[in-house]
Amino acid sequence: MTYCVALKLKSGLVMLADTRTNAGVDNVSRFRKMFAWEVPGERAICLMSAGNLSITQGVVTRLDTDAKAALAGEEVESILTAPSMYRVAEIVGRHMAEMQAEYRDALAAQGAAPDASILVAGQRRGGEHRLFMIYSPGNFIEATEDTPYLQIGEHKYGKPILDRVITPSTPLPRALKAVYVSMDSTLRSNLSVGMPLDLAVIRAGEHRFATRRRIESDDEEFGQISQMWSAALRDAFQSLPDIGEG
Amino acid sequence: MTYCVALKLKSGLVMLADTRTNAGVDNVSRFRKMFAWEVPGERAICLMSAGNLSITQGVVTRLDTDAKAALAGEEVESILTAPSMYRVAEIVGRHMAEMQAEYRDALAAQGAAPDASILVAGQRRGGEHRLFMIYSPGNFIEATEDTPYLQIGEHKYGKPILDRVITPSTPLPRALKAVYVSMDSTLRSNLSVGMPLDLAVIRAGEHRFATRRRIESDDEEFGQISQMWSAALRDAFQSLPDIGEG
Repeated sequence: MTYCVALKLKSGLVMLADTRTNAGVDNVSRFRKMFAWEVPGERAICLMSAGNLSITQGVVTRLDTDAKAALAGEEVESILTAPSMYRVAEIVGRHMAEMQAEYRDALAAQGAAPDASILVAGQRRGGEHRLFMIYSPGNFIEATEDTPYLQIGEHKYGKPILDRVITPSTPLPRALKAVYVSMDSTLRSNLSVGMPLDLAVIRAGEHRFATRRRIESDDEEFGQISQMWSAALRDAFQSLPDIGEG
Repeated sequence: MTYCVALKLKSGLVMLADTRTNAGVDNVSRFRKMFAWEVPGERAICLMSAGNLSITQGVVTRLDTDAKAALAGEEVESILTAPSMYRVAEIVGRHMAEMQAEYRDALAAQGAAPDASILVAGQRRGGEHRLFMIYSPGNFIEATEDTPYLQIGEHKYGKPILDRVITPSTPLPRALKAVYVSMDSTLRSNLSVGMPLDLAVIRAGEHRFATRRRIESDDEEFGQISQMWSAALRDAFQSLPDIGEG
């Protein structure tokens, strides 16, 4: 399983992903699910993936190959040269659709799950910062003012806190706190989501990554939020009146 | 969808169920999912169901028909005359298996979901109070000291608070508060779980229902817990330190 969450706020984009994959409970591994491409000052793009790992790795490899070719001056369409973030989402969707066309039937015939989903967010010079979710067929949706966050993978445990505290106007330090709590709730309830985590932040209008870091299991800041949240929740529950049996 | 939760504590049994069913998002109805049988002072049994409504209504109807026949003196095995709660679980499981055998293939052929699950809890004079979860094939598991609660239906949103506060020693007023909060979190996050609710409490050793009541959407006590929990969560989140972007 997987948990990835992305916020599109007025102040920028926040992305957080776990790194655990499993092919059955007895075959657990660590795989990066967050990928980044950057031409500092021109564009920064972050991608997170969930679902069938062979499918999503294929999509990422093709995106990366084309990006490198485009940077080397070759005539190839790539996410680093696309004229808009919308076109970036279309390119990711096209690779997703191609991977599905190539492997989906064979995977399904063997009883394997071919579904996958991808979050892609970023900003290029001259455009807004945007966030998209790409589905298995290659179609996609975009985060809006009404729904300023998108999640893939095991999304339920970490959703309530986002619903309660995230709005488009949430400042970045508060948004980071919210995605930490959202991830912490998921880690506690689903063993197939695991540390370390990958965090990325792109501030609006900067066209570069303000933050890209790995949060290891002994990370002090994340550990502190986790413990304080646990204690605060217990206190919050204590503060409610007991119920009579009526 | 559905959310039902049952706790087996040293002090007794607590059961809470919602009442919303839907066949597609445009066909939402209200159906009772909690059922009770009682011979006061001898035994009290509570059942909650999730999944295919035609299957679970069939199971309940058969259980109820046999219970009435047994009370009328007929020679029929029933949950009101079974010699143990374990045998009660077996009887529920047998009816579930029979309903599945009768309808499962036809339902699946039409693309409908035949799966269902049932929580059954109670106590008979001379035995312990016990709580079981019955699956579609008719097999079942029992709640233990290690896992003193069981859930069916949309269980994820309401699980974290139970994991944090419920132990076998939790007193009933605190346990009621916990299932209210667990249900409130589910109601907020999943539209297909809805008010009113049905609540039942059986205190250990009483062999009768201490509480059986419907909680309507304008219930003051439930509304108060919901609002206070919302405010307490916001305060808890506020109390955490903001995160630097590192």
